[in-house]
Amino acid sequence: MTRRLPRLSAARAPLTREVEVIDEHGERGLISIPAERDLTVYVDRRELVTLMTLGAQPELLVLGYLLNQRLIESAADVESITVDWEVNAAAVKTHAGIDRIEERTARKVVTTGCGQGSVFGELMAGIERLALPDTRMRQPQLYALVNAIRLQESTYKSAGSVHGCALFTLGEGDHDARMQCFVEDVGRHNAIDTIAGWIAMQPPGRLEGGRVFYTTGRLTSEMVIKSAQMGVAIVVSRSGMTQMGYEVATKVGLCAIGRATNKRFVCYAGSDRLILQPGLAGARWPDRPDSP
Amino acid sequence: MTRRLPRLSAARAPLTREVEVIDEHGERGLISIPAERDLTVYVDRRELVTLMTLGAQPELLVLGYLLNQRLIESAADVESITVDWEVNAAAVKTHAGIDRIEERTARKVVTTGCGQGSVFGELMAGIERLALPDTRMRQPQLYALVNAIRLQESTYKSAGSVHGCALFTLGEGDHDARMQCFVEDVGRHNAIDTIAGWIAMQPPGRLEGGRVFYTTGRLTSEMVIKSAQMGVAIVVSRSGMTQMGYEVATKVGLCAIGRATNKRFVCYAGSDRLILQPGLAGARWPDRPDSP
Repeated sequence: MTRRLPRLSAARAPLTREVEVIDEHGERGLISIPAERDLTVYVDRRELVTLMTLGAQPELLVLGYLLNQRLIESAADVESITVDWEVNAAAVKTHAGIDRIEERTARKVVTTGCGQGSVFGELMAGIERLALPDTRMRQPQLYALVNAIRLQESTYKSAGSVHGCALFTLGEGDHDARMQCFVEDVGRHNAIDTIAGWIAMQPPGRLEGGRVFYTTGRLTSEMVIKSAQMGVAIVVSRSGMTQMGYEVATKVGLCAIGRATNKRFVCYAGSDRLILQPGLAGARWPDRPDSP
Repeated sequence: MTRRLPRLSAARAPLTREVEVIDEHGERGLISIPAERDLTVYVDRRELVTLMTLGAQPELLVLGYLLNQRLIESAADVESITVDWEVNAAAVKTHAGIDRIEERTARKVVTTGCGQGSVFGELMAGIERLALPDTRMRQPQLYALVNAIRLQESTYKSAGSVHGCALFTLGEGDHDARMQCFVEDVGRHNAIDTIAGWIAMQPPGRLEGGRVFYTTGRLTSEMVIKSAQMGVAIVVSRSGMTQMGYEVATKVGLCAIGRATNKRFVCYAGSDRLILQPGLAGARWPDRPDSP
């Protein structure tokens, strides 16, 4: 039996709010701040978790959260997700309930700092068993990706003080890197979960080509683990990488590219997935220091 | 009976490690990355949580974590904390065990995105009952604080790509803001927990004067909640603030100052705690826009 995709509400709330502030001259004024909100998720009427989110696509966030936490196997397990910002709640109805939900949600792992050690160990063991797709990216595609982000950020007024993540697919052409989805949220794990929800709602065949994540902020273990779980083999960031992120990336064969600005970047791991083109980044001056 | 402070190991491990990378010219080189590590905490031989940390002061981090999670009431509840980086483990011995530890650790709240809704509600209700000390800061003290951070960051080579938090105390003099403790970690909640552990280990009377936190990164709800729980009434950041952080700050009467660089800043909430001095920030040009 083929089940349909879930019915989603389209709950929207302003992404920013204005507050009155005082500056260094003692003058009052208005500033826009990101409208971080609490969203309590109920699954089949049972309270599960409270997520802190900007609320741009709350239904996709909830769906992606359930997927990335492995509480459901696919979007088709869900009948509906209804978000109501009046009560800061998301009601999820599943077709067949979630097995052993008590036990599984008692042992949450969030690699930014809370979780159970044995579950962490299981998580790391599970990571090693993942098989990533054979995605390769050409250097000009990376530049097209970085440029697309630059345009996105300068074109669309950001809510400010938030993290952004984007999903790209790579095509045949040298410069072919298409932004499929761009999400801002107060936390990158929420932004990535929202992208997971978005991917799950796409019709079959909609997303062609190798997948690449872009993220603001550091390439931490959390970021790398989520990418690997979602089957995305290349991650790009403007910032640096941590050791744990490096170790996970190396274990699973994920390509991690950091400090990506303009034509410069550093590939920390998985460089076999990056097809370099000598000379593309411009001439190297003979007197420049060797270290990247 | 007066109990002694806990016995702490002094486990140290390098804060950075070098990895080989490839740059945009295809050249190999070495880069230092922050040595993010997993640390599994065992309390009375029972596994509790795995923390991801840079590992600068792991014993203080563990102590502060237990305090900030309200699993212990004071440092004196703990007999010893022994960290062994060989096995990435911290063994905590308490004097009298932790009451209802199963129940209390099943319901963890981490406001960056995981937790239980009802516990979140309880957390927020608990916040409102907190009474903050009557701390006030003068504008030149704020500038002294911001300058001290600037000096710290330029003097001590950071592990890079990490967050920093500092505890200051305010004295009698106009410019009297003393940095007591500066901690870098991969997450700000870990850095703040480490500071909580440090505070708990100080002899009585060691810390005089009003307390102020400085943090890199945004003033989120998590940051504001932790400060309020730790009895620190003023928080300063170089970055902006989110709505949830703003709402919590307003509820508890905490002073939140963001965008603090050089002489500029924005006070989002609790401005009654900030004693401004007109003219200190320099002249205002008549043709400058009014908004801060």
